[in-house]
Amino acid sequence: MPAPYPSLSIPKRLLMGPGPSEVDPRVYHAMLQPVVGYLDQNLLRAMDEINAMLQTVFGTRNRGTFPIAGTGSAGMEASLINFIEPGDEVAVSVGGAFASRMCEMIVRAGGNLLRLDHAPGTVANPDDIRRAVRGKKLKVLAVVHSETSTGTLQPLQPLAEIAHEAGALLVVDTVSSLGGLPVDVDACGVDVCYSGTQKCLACPPGLSPFTFNERAADVVRGRKQPVQSWYLDLSMIEKYWAEERRYHHTPPVSMLYAFHEALRIIIEEGVDAVYARHLQCHRAFVHGIEALGLTMFVANPADRAATVNVIRIPDGVEDAKVRATLTARFGIEIGPGIGDLRAKIWRVGLMGQTAKPDLVLLLLNALETALTENGFSCPKGAGVAAAEQELQVAAK
Amino acid sequence: MPAPYPSLSIPKRLLMGPGPSEVDPRVYHAMLQPVVGYLDQNLLRAMDEINAMLQTVFGTRNRGTFPIAGTGSAGMEASLINFIEPGDEVAVSVGGAFASRMCEMIVRAGGNLLRLDHAPGTVANPDDIRRAVRGKKLKVLAVVHSETSTGTLQPLQPLAEIAHEAGALLVVDTVSSLGGLPVDVDACGVDVCYSGTQKCLACPPGLSPFTFNERAADVVRGRKQPVQSWYLDLSMIEKYWAEERRYHHTPPVSMLYAFHEALRIIIEEGVDAVYARHLQCHRAFVHGIEALGLTMFVANPADRAATVNVIRIPDGVEDAKVRATLTARFGIEIGPGIGDLRAKIWRVGLMGQTAKPDLVLLLLNALETALTENGFSCPKGAGVAAAEQELQVAAK
Repeated sequence: MPAPYPSLSIPKRLLMGPGPSEVDPRVYHAMLQPVVGYLDQNLLRAMDEINAMLQTVFGTRNRGTFPIAGTGSAGMEASLINFIEPGDEVAVSVGGAFASRMCEMIVRAGGNLLRLDHAPGTVANPDDIRRAVRGKKLKVLAVVHSETSTGTLQPLQPLAEIAHEAGALLVVDTVSSLGGLPVDVDACGVDVCYSGTQKCLACPPGLSPFTFNERAADVVRGRKQPVQSWYLDLSMIEKYWAEERRYHHTPPVSMLYAFHEALRIIIEEGVDAVYARHLQCHRAFVHGIEALGLTMFVANPADRAATVNVIRIPDGVEDAKVRATLTARFGIEIGPGIGDLRAKIWRVGLMGQTAKPDLVLLLLNALETALTENGFSCPKGAGVAAAEQELQVAAK
Repeated sequence: MPAPYPSLSIPKRLLMGPGPSEVDPRVYHAMLQPVVGYLDQNLLRAMDEINAMLQTVFGTRNRGTFPIAGTGSAGMEASLINFIEPGDEVAVSVGGAFASRMCEMIVRAGGNLLRLDHAPGTVANPDDIRRAVRGKKLKVLAVVHSETSTGTLQPLQPLAEIAHEAGALLVVDTVSSLGGLPVDVDACGVDVCYSGTQKCLACPPGLSPFTFNERAADVVRGRKQPVQSWYLDLSMIEKYWAEERRYHHTPPVSMLYAFHEALRIIIEEGVDAVYARHLQCHRAFVHGIEALGLTMFVANPADRAATVNVIRIPDGVEDAKVRATLTARFGIEIGPGIGDLRAKIWRVGLMGQTAKPDLVLLLLNALETALTENGFSCPKGAGVAAAEQELQVAAK
């Protein structure tokens, strides 16, 4: 019998890492709505509204648009295993940890993996991909839009063309872009797309927003054998989200309430305004970082995701110490590098509620202090000044 | 662009169906704790406490004891796919819808299914199972403890003996029993066990409490090929819950806060007191139901789960009308039958927060009114009187 633990009292952090990111109090409060049964009319209406608002954020009219009952990786798995059968050829464009994770899932699903690596911190060259898949009978081309491990942004439209030329579906990870950058599923020709709620959508982690078009649905309908996962079988999940409301599994009701409110906040502001805000904050932050004497990990400005801002750690500066200073003194969390990039980069999320000018300035100020204390001399006040100048230019 | 939907305003129901069931306000409020990063020390401490409290509820000292990041069916899938490889012999004792679901998952996992059916509303006879598996090289014997679709309770210890004689693991579904009835994982010899948070644990749906012992862990370690699901791969999930804290996927933080508080409520009351309360309410309810002239679906009292109370719908009474009266006039939800039992039974959950004497009486009273209005004449006040008498006997 364990000791009677006290109730939780979790200190608030300002979450400016690569996710989870800040959650609006309105979203927390939505979870106080009472849990109801899975066929309660009020829940079903909320689900229809989630479907409509999520279509707007994805930029799609796909009927098959809903959150999957698991975190982002559950969506990643659903986006692959529903469309792949053993022996199918599947190509993945890999420039970071999350594309690598896709590869692992494809192998587990029995897919015949064609892994197309490019250097971390760069985006894939469509011509290289076109050459690599030429003559292949490709089932799926998978790619990460905003690679959360490196901060790159991969343009999707050229890859959709290549996928469709090869008779394949384009599957896209938008975990750290959806809700912060235009994804434009329909306009770009994306067939299958998933995300997570805990980044730009500014909701607690626990759901994976998902969409797939009729072309992708045809692939599911034409399967020779059932999807290996019952829980993530899209043909069953969609029957609960569609008019027939066929029971599949008990939905995570409180998470749906939270997601409904998070989507409302985005729709209220307007998606174009949201995207403009993310871009503006990103630009101001980059100006500030460069004025402090730091450099961005992604060399080409056009290749940078506005949402995940990746900074090179200067020589001689200790990763953990700077982050510890930020947390202990200012209550701010930024993210470390993962895998080969550990201790080489910091990842700063300007996503959803943290893509705000005041937080950009606040972080630049805190970073200047933390760097100075840890032996890296920055020009005093230069980061904030440069960012403010950029924000004023944008405001004109 | 959808219309700006209003914020949610979900009417409160008294949830006395087979789940989701009532959630304590303390649990809702725990979800207001701020989301933090997946390596935040405060979150890790909460996870350790969840592990310890969940061990108590499962009746186990298994280190591998944690909630999986999906609803109950995700736990069901994890309990099977991690231990089964293509071609393995897997037996399932089937007396209802949830055992049938296990069969479907086993086939998808490539298991060689031995389906052992018994009549719905009865429990399996261990001798029949022993005979059926004799001489088989069995990898897993799977069984449902409390079959949520029929209200039966299967004793586990005899099945553990049979599984172990056959060299198999015993996998047990405790979705509608954990936290309401003793499960006694270690004492019964259960190797793998999962549940859902939204029944007796009185927490919103979204997590699947899970435990597996060293014998089961050895089977995972000895696999010839990786588990087909990356998301539900126990060998990866346990590395995040263990001291090494290796990142797997972003945990559903707010759901963990809720679950921590739900477990605290159970530990505060004491698990033995909780189990006694469930049994007492069940007995009082059955007395009341029989005094109203109704009969329980499970004929043998010893075979009934105290948590899911299943009533036969009397001839000539319309299922939907009675349930509609209960909801419209009294705000109470009870559950319909599913599958072949649709329109033949009602399922009443006395689980967690609804296993309370006052709610038993309240429901019996409302049921009497609803039945009377829908053409079934009950002896006036007899249900409440019989239940109260039973509660007084128990109190002595």
